[in-house]
Amino acid sequence: MTHVSPTRSWVASANDHADFPLQNLPLGIFSIAGGAPRSGVAIGERIFDLQAALQAGLFESAAGDAVAAMDGGQLNAFFDLGRSARVALRERLLELLREDSPLRDKIEAQGDRLLPRAADCQMHLPAKISDYTDFYVGIEHAQNVGKLFRPDNPLLPNYKYVPIGYHGRASTVRPSGTDVRRPKGQTLPAGQTEPTFGPCARLDYELELGIWIGQGNALGEPIAIGDAAEHIAGFCLLNDWSARDIQAWEYQPLGPFLSKSFLTSVSPWVVTAEALEPFRRPQPARPEGDPQPLPYLLDTRDQAGGAFDIELEVLLLTETMREQNLPAHRLTLSNTRYMYWTVAQMVAHHSVNGCQLQAGDLFGSGTLSGPENGQFGSLLEITEGGKKPIELASGEVRKFLEDGDEIILRARCSREGMTSIGFGECRGKILPAR
Amino acid sequence: MTHVSPTRSWVASANDHADFPLQNLPLGIFSIAGGAPRSGVAIGERIFDLQAALQAGLFESAAGDAVAAMDGGQLNAFFDLGRSARVALRERLLELLREDSPLRDKIEAQGDRLLPRAADCQMHLPAKISDYTDFYVGIEHAQNVGKLFRPDNPLLPNYKYVPIGYHGRASTVRPSGTDVRRPKGQTLPAGQTEPTFGPCARLDYELELGIWIGQGNALGEPIAIGDAAEHIAGFCLLNDWSARDIQAWEYQPLGPFLSKSFLTSVSPWVVTAEALEPFRRPQPARPEGDPQPLPYLLDTRDQAGGAFDIELEVLLLTETMREQNLPAHRLTLSNTRYMYWTVAQMVAHHSVNGCQLQAGDLFGSGTLSGPENGQFGSLLEITEGGKKPIELASGEVRKFLEDGDEIILRARCSREGMTSIGFGECRGKILPAR
Repeated sequence: MTHVSPTRSWVASANDHADFPLQNLPLGIFSIAGGAPRSGVAIGERIFDLQAALQAGLFESAAGDAVAAMDGGQLNAFFDLGRSARVALRERLLELLREDSPLRDKIEAQGDRLLPRAADCQMHLPAKISDYTDFYVGIEHAQNVGKLFRPDNPLLPNYKYVPIGYHGRASTVRPSGTDVRRPKGQTLPAGQTEPTFGPCARLDYELELGIWIGQGNALGEPIAIGDAAEHIAGFCLLNDWSARDIQAWEYQPLGPFLSKSFLTSVSPWVVTAEALEPFRRPQPARPEGDPQPLPYLLDTRDQAGGAFDIELEVLLLTETMREQNLPAHRLTLSNTRYMYWTVAQMVAHHSVNGCQLQAGDLFGSGTLSGPENGQFGSLLEITEGGKKPIELASGEVRKFLEDGDEIILRARCSREGMTSIGFGECRGKILPAR
Repeated sequence: MTHVSPTRSWVASANDHADFPLQNLPLGIFSIAGGAPRSGVAIGERIFDLQAALQAGLFESAAGDAVAAMDGGQLNAFFDLGRSARVALRERLLELLREDSPLRDKIEAQGDRLLPRAADCQMHLPAKISDYTDFYVGIEHAQNVGKLFRPDNPLLPNYKYVPIGYHGRASTVRPSGTDVRRPKGQTLPAGQTEPTFGPCARLDYELELGIWIGQGNALGEPIAIGDAAEHIAGFCLLNDWSARDIQAWEYQPLGPFLSKSFLTSVSPWVVTAEALEPFRRPQPARPEGDPQPLPYLLDTRDQAGGAFDIELEVLLLTETMREQNLPAHRLTLSNTRYMYWTVAQMVAHHSVNGCQLQAGDLFGSGTLSGPENGQFGSLLEITEGGKKPIELASGEVRKFLEDGDEIILRARCSREGMTSIGFGECRGKILPAR
């Protein structure tokens, strides 16, 4: 409903903005010129300063409580208030920012104070992340990677029963724009039996959807699949930077460790479940012969509208391309529809053993590749582990990422008759190893 | 030095106390009767209330700053102050609590206020855990478990090069005494191809040393092996409760997840590096033919005195044994000497890719089994995966843990001519699945 009326904002740059029209209203934490981080909403090329607006008397009751909970430069306490606070805030924001808002004059009277230019702001992580979990629900990625190792049997027997995931490193999640220092580590050179130590030579990106957890659960009390949507605060883009050579040597028997924990990038804006509502879709029918989810992962509402239609894009910009003013090279055009499990299934599975989730926990979906060339969400898949380098307009070739390369993730939701919304960018540039 | 003189405390219960004589002085967070959690030091059967002592004027300069940093019911900011603050506090505590302390009268004048009975106190986690990492440095455990799957080749090729570890779940670490709700989850019954869902039937303990990280490092800046000791705040006991049937089905290809994240128990007292100093030992000579550590893991001081001689014990007490007043059954008597890597090597490895460690991060060593019967640190090893049940004095048998069973971890450091110190207990009792 909120996507039909109102449709336009008096903040001119919002109208027809690719990412942040009035219909989106994503939440984030920003600062200006080294000032204290505070909460805001992206609207076109501006950020609506929520705490300043609260002080100016523009929020009261539930919406006011929601903004008051954003104290301290993080959204955790707001996430913990759950869906009703989010909806109250969204409704009030629509009132304040729509084209015919009676409050426009009051906001504009304060000049740019309530609406600084996004270009003048620095974005921060939206929340203090207690725990970060990376899933593996992109079935095409699991198949593509599995094929590299087991051509006849790419998916392991548990894949279609278990939303596979593992614990990630929370301390090294950073917002878009943070440079990526090439990690050093142990790798096993081809044909050798003893490892060497040095800079990663097979540095890769992974295209993922990030999920911010809202209200948590008590230890020992699982979240039922039917309640899971209530525990999801919003979404972002996530780049699970991966050192493939370090990963190959270290990951047996306990999984990836240092090959992932040097940095994880997220887009800084939290796109809410309410903004994404028009872009939901039924969970795809499982292929003939696939098992039904076990009862704790099965919910008719979730099956009917628990998946998303979000177009995902990855761009590469090298140092040479920047110098030659060449446009970024598109590496990937994929979609969240390649998730084998819904986000609600991820939440239900994660907590079914009694594991406590907390507001501000971050999930990654796992790499979201499509089945075709052009849809692969990592260079590991695109170049088949380095065997098939890609050629760039600059005349360069790439097997994996080189120093100076920048990876840019984008996402877009579009639907006939609806205003499109986006996620903003998730960027990161590779710095040479120290 | 601090273990030679002074040797006795005017707190009578400290002298000859198995765990907490004057030489130990471990730090923790406690509360009384639902009051606010605050910091204290275990001394015999008492807890010396550090914040109350600060208010009473008993600390100043560096030791005072150290106690002031323990505000808010967690030791993180104190850990972040590093070794010098810890040493200053320890020296002042020895002055205050030694037998001939001139300040004894001043402390005793306040009655029990500064020295409540430990039995009247509740213990909490000593720190807010940002990230929890579980290592796998117990080589005998790795061999024992490897043998169950690969009798001819129990150790994977990376084991003697890489201090293997994986990210654990920080949100479900709890202090000793927290009950353990038997988790539910997916398991694959023997001989079947489709999983079932239900309570874990192979619930196990894992005996580990816990390590509390002190000062952290900046993102992208590794901690050199020679500096690693400066980044370690102290030690505890850790029980890495494990659901073996869930683990077997879920852990490929990304490692253990829900099989571990339902609960991890730690002993609540932080035994400092200074208290453990007399119980250090050279890292054991590597067996003939084992590779030298790579240079980033090699430090002569660490090799000469980076390992510990800490005796580790696991006891089992069943419901029936409690009813019959039978003593606890000893399952394990092991030692930290079975660590293939030192704690400094774990720190250097964890950060070598630039991963940021933070004050209050928790490491687990991995299960510390010895090579012989009686030294195995998990039921998986003791019963060979359930094939060889153990018999208890109560007439019961156990393959894995049953509801009502309680596991108690203890640790003791002893050396000729030195006062022994201990860690206190790490207990947990199994509750039936919900």
